[in-house]
Amino acid sequence: MAVLAVDLGGTKLALAVFSDDGEMLHRTSYPLDKRAGKAVGALITDAVQQIPIQVNAIGIAVPGICRHQRGTVWAPNIPGWEDYPLLAEMKTIAGNTPVFIESDRSCYILGEIWQGNAQGCKDAIFLAVGTGIGAGILINGEVLQGSKGIAGAIGWMALDRPFQNTYTDCGCFESMASGEGIVKVALQLILKDPAYNGILRKDALSAQDVFAAYRKNDHIAVEVILQSISLWAMATANLVSLFNPEKIIFGGGVFGPAAEFLPVIAAEAARWAQPISMKQVRLEVSGLGTDAGLYGAAYRALHD
Amino acid sequence: MAVLAVDLGGTKLALAVFSDDGEMLHRTSYPLDKRAGKAVGALITDAVQQIPIQVNAIGIAVPGICRHQRGTVWAPNIPGWEDYPLLAEMKTIAGNTPVFIESDRSCYILGEIWQGNAQGCKDAIFLAVGTGIGAGILINGEVLQGSKGIAGAIGWMALDRPFQNTYTDCGCFESMASGEGIVKVALQLILKDPAYNGILRKDALSAQDVFAAYRKNDHIAVEVILQSISLWAMATANLVSLFNPEKIIFGGGVFGPAAEFLPVIAAEAARWAQPISMKQVRLEVSGLGTDAGLYGAAYRALHD
Repeated sequence: MAVLAVDLGGTKLALAVFSDDGEMLHRTSYPLDKRAGKAVGALITDAVQQIPIQVNAIGIAVPGICRHQRGTVWAPNIPGWEDYPLLAEMKTIAGNTPVFIESDRSCYILGEIWQGNAQGCKDAIFLAVGTGIGAGILINGEVLQGSKGIAGAIGWMALDRPFQNTYTDCGCFESMASGEGIVKVALQLILKDPAYNGILRKDALSAQDVFAAYRKNDHIAVEVILQSISLWAMATANLVSLFNPEKIIFGGGVFGPAAEFLPVIAAEAARWAQPISMKQVRLEVSGLGTDAGLYGAAYRALHD
Repeated sequence: MAVLAVDLGGTKLALAVFSDDGEMLHRTSYPLDKRAGKAVGALITDAVQQIPIQVNAIGIAVPGICRHQRGTVWAPNIPGWEDYPLLAEMKTIAGNTPVFIESDRSCYILGEIWQGNAQGCKDAIFLAVGTGIGAGILINGEVLQGSKGIAGAIGWMALDRPFQNTYTDCGCFESMASGEGIVKVALQLILKDPAYNGILRKDALSAQDVFAAYRKNDHIAVEVILQSISLWAMATANLVSLFNPEKIIFGGGVFGPAAEFLPVIAAEAARWAQPISMKQVRLEVSGLGTDAGLYGAAYRALHD
């Protein structure tokens, strides 16, 4: 048996065929090239039709929320995808092959459960820190959906009083400690420090630049990264205290370079978290890297 | 069919017999009178044996954690109950009547689901703010236990950077915004303000005193209560963003007098929380008051 996994991101589309024992048989990807609305849907259906291997089911990871009852998708970073009828479009090309759509954050933890670092776990969380921040939360083997399918929106976690207007668009945690947040915080600090003439004073600053500058002991980068570590640790502690999970898996583009801070994050989280739960949890980096969404979409297709 | 509900608190033991349609047929309670260890166990078994009505099952709410596999209880406010063999003791007197033990916070939300303000909900949370703070979390109709049964320890939620040593014993949220926390924060402010000669400068200050002083516009009480409102709102927002629940029910001794602030808490939470989830949730005060634990213990006995 083989399944097709589709991972739609904000900038690219990846597809892979997996055997039911987790072997990746085929892999391909396409840049979105600023496509929007129906052009993204057409890219997906065209790409699926070009897959050369017969599959028994299709799983799709989407960068947002799937409204399961209606089969529509809200993907905030894809213009025109406020309520996109992806399931209906897929059904026009899939014939009798069943199609399952799931949020990317849910797919990440399912991928880790299947072939990554959460194998054997029933209560585990994937903390995805990339451009944005989200959490895929597995409880007793089931993905936490919430009453309307939008659980795990941890980018909105309130961690730093008092409320700032900069939190309005994407939440306190995400606005300070996502990839974009790291850049925004660095730019604010540079703005406040006219005398600063370090390596971060450049055009098109990226989170990678901030990590590189941290390694060179740039004082603004150090301030930004230490603040991020503190916030990642508080969020970790809150997941530990609320969910009492076996594992928290850190992934997304930021973990990545932030993976080296995991021992520091663990030590700082231990100051905040319920102490018994903290002793029981293990913190690990993703075992699947950028393929976690593909593995999870495949698992979703295999195990519905 | 009738069931016996037992609610063990930090200072008293309550027992009630319920019919399976939720009618309370009998109710009694005993002060713990500073009993510890086996004396508390003996109080429970004696009280159960004196119940004059035949019951089909017994549910017990405990102020801490039940280790379900071993049937033992960790109750931090009862000396000698680090790992108390309550299930084994109950079995010596219960004969063939099944006995179920559950944490008080889990019982609170089960009680509200059965006979209180969460009837009809499958995803609902009880935020219990009393001497301490805990959350009973219902996900798709099931109580969230976590990998080792200690989920819902929301008193440890990290909400206010940087870390303070005052958070060490019971967590950031609980140390600032529980009943005991309100008193501690007030005492700290009084200590810092030698000129203060208001109504809170008294012996044996209680949270009730702080609420009463707030109503008289005492400036220290106002500062303490406004800070508590801000923290209750952040915790509410975090529950909304993570769990996407239908309802959050506020209970415990502090709600209570803090119930009047629910509209303010909702407005402040809406600044922090995932905005779609926030629109979907309803915030309400407990419909069962101090009996929520009894109702939940009965429901647990009826529906295992």
